[in-house]
Amino acid sequence: MGYEWVSFTTDYGLDDGFVAACHGVLARLAPRARVIDVTHLVPPQDVRRGAAVLAQTVPALPPAVHLAVVDPGVGTSRRGIVVATPGGVLVGPDNGLLLPAAEALGGVTAAHELADPTYWAPTVSSTFHGRDMFAPVTAHLVLGVPPMRFGPVLDADDLVRLPEPVARARPGRLTAEVLSTDHFGNVQLAASRAHLAEAGLRPGSPVQVSVGTTTVPATVGTTFGDVPIGELVVFVDSADLVAIARNGGSAADWLETHRDHDIMIEATR
Amino acid sequence: MGYEWVSFTTDYGLDDGFVAACHGVLARLAPRARVIDVTHLVPPQDVRRGAAVLAQTVPALPPAVHLAVVDPGVGTSRRGIVVATPGGVLVGPDNGLLLPAAEALGGVTAAHELADPTYWAPTVSSTFHGRDMFAPVTAHLVLGVPPMRFGPVLDADDLVRLPEPVARARPGRLTAEVLSTDHFGNVQLAASRAHLAEAGLRPGSPVQVSVGTTTVPATVGTTFGDVPIGELVVFVDSADLVAIARNGGSAADWLETHRDHDIMIEATR
Amino acid sequence: MGYEWVSFTTDYGLDDGFVAACHGVLARLAPRARVIDVTHLVPPQDVRRGAAVLAQTVPALPPAVHLAVVDPGVGTSRRGIVVATPGGVLVGPDNGLLLPAAEALGGVTAAHELADPTYWAPTVSSTFHGRDMFAPVTAHLVLGVPPMRFGPVLDADDLVRLPEPVARARPGRLTAEVLSTDHFGNVQLAASRAHLAEAGLRPGSPVQVSVGTTTVPATVGTTFGDVPIGELVVFVDSADLVAIARNGGSAADWLETHRDHDIMIEATR
Repeated sequence: MGYEWVSFTTDYGLDDGFVAACHGVLARLAPRARVIDVTHLVPPQDVRRGAAVLAQTVPALPPAVHLAVVDPGVGTSRRGIVVATPGGVLVGPDNGLLLPAAEALGGVTAAHELADPTYWAPTVSSTFHGRDMFAPVTAHLVLGVPPMRFGPVLDADDLVRLPEPVARARPGRLTAEVLSTDHFGNVQLAASRAHLAEAGLRPGSPVQVSVGTTTVPATVGTTFGDVPIGELVVFVDSADLVAIARNGGSAADWLETHRDHDIMIEATR
Repeated sequence: MGYEWVSFTTDYGLDDGFVAACHGVLARLAPRARVIDVTHLVPPQDVRRGAAVLAQTVPALPPAVHLAVVDPGVGTSRRGIVVATPGGVLVGPDNGLLLPAAEALGGVTAAHELADPTYWAPTVSSTFHGRDMFAPVTAHLVLGVPPMRFGPVLDADDLVRLPEPVARARPGRLTAEVLSTDHFGNVQLAASRAHLAEAGLRPGSPVQVSVGTTTVPATVGTTFGDVPIGELVVFVDSADLVAIARNGGSAADWLETHRDHDIMIEATR
Repeated sequence: MGYEWVSFTTDYGLDDGFVAACHGVLARLAPRARVIDVTHLVPPQDVRRGAAVLAQTVPALPPAVHLAVVDPGVGTSRRGIVVATPGGVLVGPDNGLLLPAAEALGGVTAAHELADPTYWAPTVSSTFHGRDMFAPVTAHLVLGVPPMRFGPVLDADDLVRLPEPVARARPGRLTAEVLSTDHFGNVQLAASRAHLAEAGLRPGSPVQVSVGTTTVPATVGTTFGDVPIGELVVFVDSADLVAIARNGGSAADWLETHRDHDIMIEATR
């Protein structure tokens, strides 16, 4: 009953005391909880990026209450929700942030609106629901309060979902949206290992990578060192998604890409 | 007797091993202590900013030893102090950093100079008192050593205080110093909810916000979504201070303001 | 038997979920482990900088398994290793990253190649050995599995070592490589307290600091406040290395230096 572990993902940044205030709420209400910070550097209000980071990280985490707050609608009528899955429970705003992680944890088994103020701070600010609503609810989940106690049941189909990212493959060609760019400048696409296979692109295949009007040569491989320093490699990354890296450098800088571009990878004739 | 929790606030940054070295000292001397990092990204040597972040965060934390080091005078004759309050105890340099948090925790009940090297590292470097003096003292407070054991009593009135920030209100007009700008670009003023009331500015009031020679329209509200995307809202933030935000953007960029400007908010005639 | 503490040093950055994924692996396999994050902001693939930060931080940490990953060769034939010392055990790639810390912990007493997949994740990605190999091995070391179990013994002399940094002294002159620049802009040299003594430079000595074609005056001291605001002080820093600071500012900006420059400090005639 309950959980020992909490994961915590936000766009709060690390310059202010916002993250610590939520840790403090957990420490006061559920002092035995142990918190793993996923990241607090989601770009401000970038729900899509927050959803991707959380979904790609939860498979490595122990069963936990996953607290996530990227919340442009804080203080408006957007709902707060708790989402139960076979692999853990998620708490945050109903804006699409939690659902990709819920899928990664086995799918939504129940969803409830956060409606009962019994489980919130005595006074709820209009701009810091992380501290005043989501962290207290998380603490109560840690302590074993079941999700149904927080408010009325919601149909999973009524939860807000992010648009499905573009990813399509046909023999010799893969086109996909950029999902994110990591700290190393590796460019992660919305395409999976299956898309790469569908395009018939195998380790060793020479390819062309195009974004906008730029086309550069690359090689399909399995790790950075498969190509000479400075060259591009297309590979399946540690989240099982197709990615582009530059050995010893930043593929993102090289491609001058960013998240809103589609990328095309074509077999070289 | 003693404490389970420690909070930790510095300007050490996250690129070096300074923060970890202090965690290490705590782990060696008081292994049961549990540490909540408030922030280590206080701008270098910015005592005022460190004091504001700490004071705004401690109310959310459990009873704790609050270790804070923003210390331009390290190695000079500035004193190290321990400050007791009804809500916890604070350790750091006597340069004004700790007092706003002490007020937030119920006020100073006792203060002592750190004078007894029994409670320090065997060798104290000239430039890293966090590791060699403040963290060991924190560990001993965690273990239950009472504040009086660390050195002679100090009169609370003799402690170094930061200048009181500017904040004044009259009907129709509020003038206040910028206290800080957060990760989202929200501009927090030194003015309280009471100042806003004194100026007669209520949710829904149209106002003009002036900084230097710039004047822009805004609306008093309670959350970001109270104004259309791109517009400014004046509200009481989660620390109960008056703040200015831009819905879906950065008010700080918009106002080109920074901490050393006073901001005037006037009712629109 | 085993360890309670783990230290964790990488170039993974804080924007992604990489650090949390490794924390998650530790939480699942060795839930009683307690982790001290040293830094995750080593510049991407900068093995030398990672080695310096780790070596300077481990003396302050409790006995621990030190997990460190700065790994440009991930997925290639570079070996993974575990290195035992009198003061703890280190896990990471065999690229020079671990050895300076091993020296600081008393020297290498045994080294083993990570060769037995029993102690790794069931599937090992080509690009994230931190999560799939090094963190699981760390967890098993925490649980008391002895280093010899992970793979064949290695001769300490066969481990990859970084080139020794430049540092030389003669009466009146000290020349040394820049080892790192910290968050405050303090410039740390590869020279020790002994080099400073060998050069005959004592607190109070006026000196000239030269880098490239720039020469500026400085004073040997023990802390920042030993010189007026804006001036340079040469001192022995908290890691017992010679460093250059600017009181109230950044010596690195002032000197326009960076890590690849040698710096010369000469007694003023």
